[in-house]
Amino acid sequence: MTSYVKWGFLTRFIEEAFEAYGIPEEDAKICTDVLLQSDKKGIESHGVNRFKPIYIDRIKDGIQNPVTTFEVVRETPTTAVVDGHDGMGQVIGYRSIKMAIEKAKTYGMGMVAVRNSTHYGIAGYYTDMAAEAGCIGISGTNARPSIAPTFSVQNKLGTNPLTVSFPTDEPFPFSLDCATSIIQRGRIELYEREGKETPAGTVIGHDGSAMTDSAAILRALQSGEAALAPLGGIGEELSGYKGYGYATIVEVLSAALQQGNFLSMLTGIGKDGEKVKFHLGHFFIAIDTEAFVGLEQFKQTTGDILRELRAAEKAPGVDRIYTAGEKEYLIWQERQKTGLPVNESVQKELIAIRDDAGLHDYRFPFED
Amino acid sequence: MTSYVKWGFLTRFIEEAFEAYGIPEEDAKICTDVLLQSDKKGIESHGVNRFKPIYIDRIKDGIQNPVTTFEVVRETPTTAVVDGHDGMGQVIGYRSIKMAIEKAKTYGMGMVAVRNSTHYGIAGYYTDMAAEAGCIGISGTNARPSIAPTFSVQNKLGTNPLTVSFPTDEPFPFSLDCATSIIQRGRIELYEREGKETPAGTVIGHDGSAMTDSAAILRALQSGEAALAPLGGIGEELSGYKGYGYATIVEVLSAALQQGNFLSMLTGIGKDGEKVKFHLGHFFIAIDTEAFVGLEQFKQTTGDILRELRAAEKAPGVDRIYTAGEKEYLIWQERQKTGLPVNESVQKELIAIRDDAGLHDYRFPFED
Repeated sequence: MTSYVKWGFLTRFIEEAFEAYGIPEEDAKICTDVLLQSDKKGIESHGVNRFKPIYIDRIKDGIQNPVTTFEVVRETPTTAVVDGHDGMGQVIGYRSIKMAIEKAKTYGMGMVAVRNSTHYGIAGYYTDMAAEAGCIGISGTNARPSIAPTFSVQNKLGTNPLTVSFPTDEPFPFSLDCATSIIQRGRIELYEREGKETPAGTVIGHDGSAMTDSAAILRALQSGEAALAPLGGIGEELSGYKGYGYATIVEVLSAALQQGNFLSMLTGIGKDGEKVKFHLGHFFIAIDTEAFVGLEQFKQTTGDILRELRAAEKAPGVDRIYTAGEKEYLIWQERQKTGLPVNESVQKELIAIRDDAGLHDYRFPFED
Repeated sequence: MTSYVKWGFLTRFIEEAFEAYGIPEEDAKICTDVLLQSDKKGIESHGVNRFKPIYIDRIKDGIQNPVTTFEVVRETPTTAVVDGHDGMGQVIGYRSIKMAIEKAKTYGMGMVAVRNSTHYGIAGYYTDMAAEAGCIGISGTNARPSIAPTFSVQNKLGTNPLTVSFPTDEPFPFSLDCATSIIQRGRIELYEREGKETPAGTVIGHDGSAMTDSAAILRALQSGEAALAPLGGIGEELSGYKGYGYATIVEVLSAALQQGNFLSMLTGIGKDGEKVKFHLGHFFIAIDTEAFVGLEQFKQTTGDILRELRAAEKAPGVDRIYTAGEKEYLIWQERQKTGLPVNESVQKELIAIRDDAGLHDYRFPFED
């Protein structure tokens, strides 16, 4: 049964657990905040359900370093190339966007390109940080091969989010944080946990057919026998080449500026089937609105645009039109009262980590 | 019957015709190059077919100024806000991306936000200029309301291209130049000229139904009785909210940094039904690859990514996998030998302009 866990308790537990696996206290706070920010926004695909498989297991497998060495390889007034040395992606991401914001505050714009990183969680965490600082934030990352190019059935590109946040005059930023595939692996993992099928047309099988069995898709994505369709779908009929193109842009920005790995180099599996480091790449751009007509004016115009969009004429039977970041804000309004709903599968993982890390002072509400 | 017109002849004619309507010689060369670049790439939706209706007619209607006043309203080392005073969008675009490139060459990055501009042609012209200069180029523009937000039937957002070019080690740049709708107005104009239906699912009628009659769609888009679906389609089933989100990002970047017009302000029609100035906004970003690991390395990694994508396993029955900019390059290889194929509808427009402008020395091959 789903159980609600209070945020304060969950935050302390995740922080202590990260520390138990060797992550320094300050870094553990960052990693926890990135992880829970996803749950707070209702993006379960990137939240606590990934704590064990994507972070703890990878540290234990030795393919991700708990202590992060953040090396600035090259730097100019507005740009930097960073080598993350396979540390914690969230820490690398946090420090990179901070750098980009500082450069933007001084010179108007800043961009940091990262190589040898690991899974950095939701891209929107970093772009929202930029928006909070009065900047436009843009970020993306490459990832395990998942998306097939238009007219191919082979998973080549990662789900490669192209993520943008803007400050606005509303209580939350505009924040579009989405994969350049129609759906992404985390969403399919969630379908699989919930025992649901994956919508037809979003995944292409090796024979060109559409796949819908979520567990089979996850296995097939891993083995290369299935691939995600890019935004716009399979083939060119509904302009799938555009989503394919945007995924390619993210792949290039995540590898070519930093001389990092890309495409089939990012499987995480070595030639003898062993787990190997991912060596992911990310990019972070901050643009200071004060370098143009100013923050207050930017916020108001952006807010005016968003309000006009929401006030557009609705399709028959529709209650409400949203703008990006709004649903996530509404979910947080609800969840800050209720705590996080945790399903049974994740409950087992949290108990396993608690026991493995020896954090015996923690007793979860779902154990009562 | 379609007739082929040689590039040299066509270039001289378009230049002289632009000049005949009051555009200074240097500017006329720019406008001509932008216009014909579209035809050279096979993007007929933005080429000579738009010479009369989108440029010459608007100058004659007094809603676009043939002489361009390029006013830099605000400037920092990396950024600028430009007021185009309703001059020629191509000239404003050309000068803006040049500015962004110069800033990038000096400081690593550059961005120019423009207000009070007019239709600037293909966005890829400007991003390709950046790629040619060794920079990453990014550009976008707002436009007449066309796209409905997800769950709306009202045309609110322009087709808002989000366009990116990269230098590569191949004979042509990576160049993704596409609307954030599934298809765009120029494409529907082309379907209408060719007497073809528009694919179902790409246009939503006022009652929520899919429309396919191209001529009816163009009328309905103008009157607000139809709207384009964003990339990803109608509703959320195949993630239409992502295309809607990207269209919103382009709208914000085209208006909020420069305090320009947006959404329903951009109809080009006044309150008494009269034609009025569009006051469009654009943005131009240049990022110097030399500020990271260097141009040659960037080109090679990008080329390697593109070659691996093209070499992916093909879907059954497919001959070839492309990357963005490749089809356009291949079309130019063919067309530089044949000249431009001009259909009868455009032939009539070219003759009308020739006669109206008094350019009696020009006799088109299709008049023989």
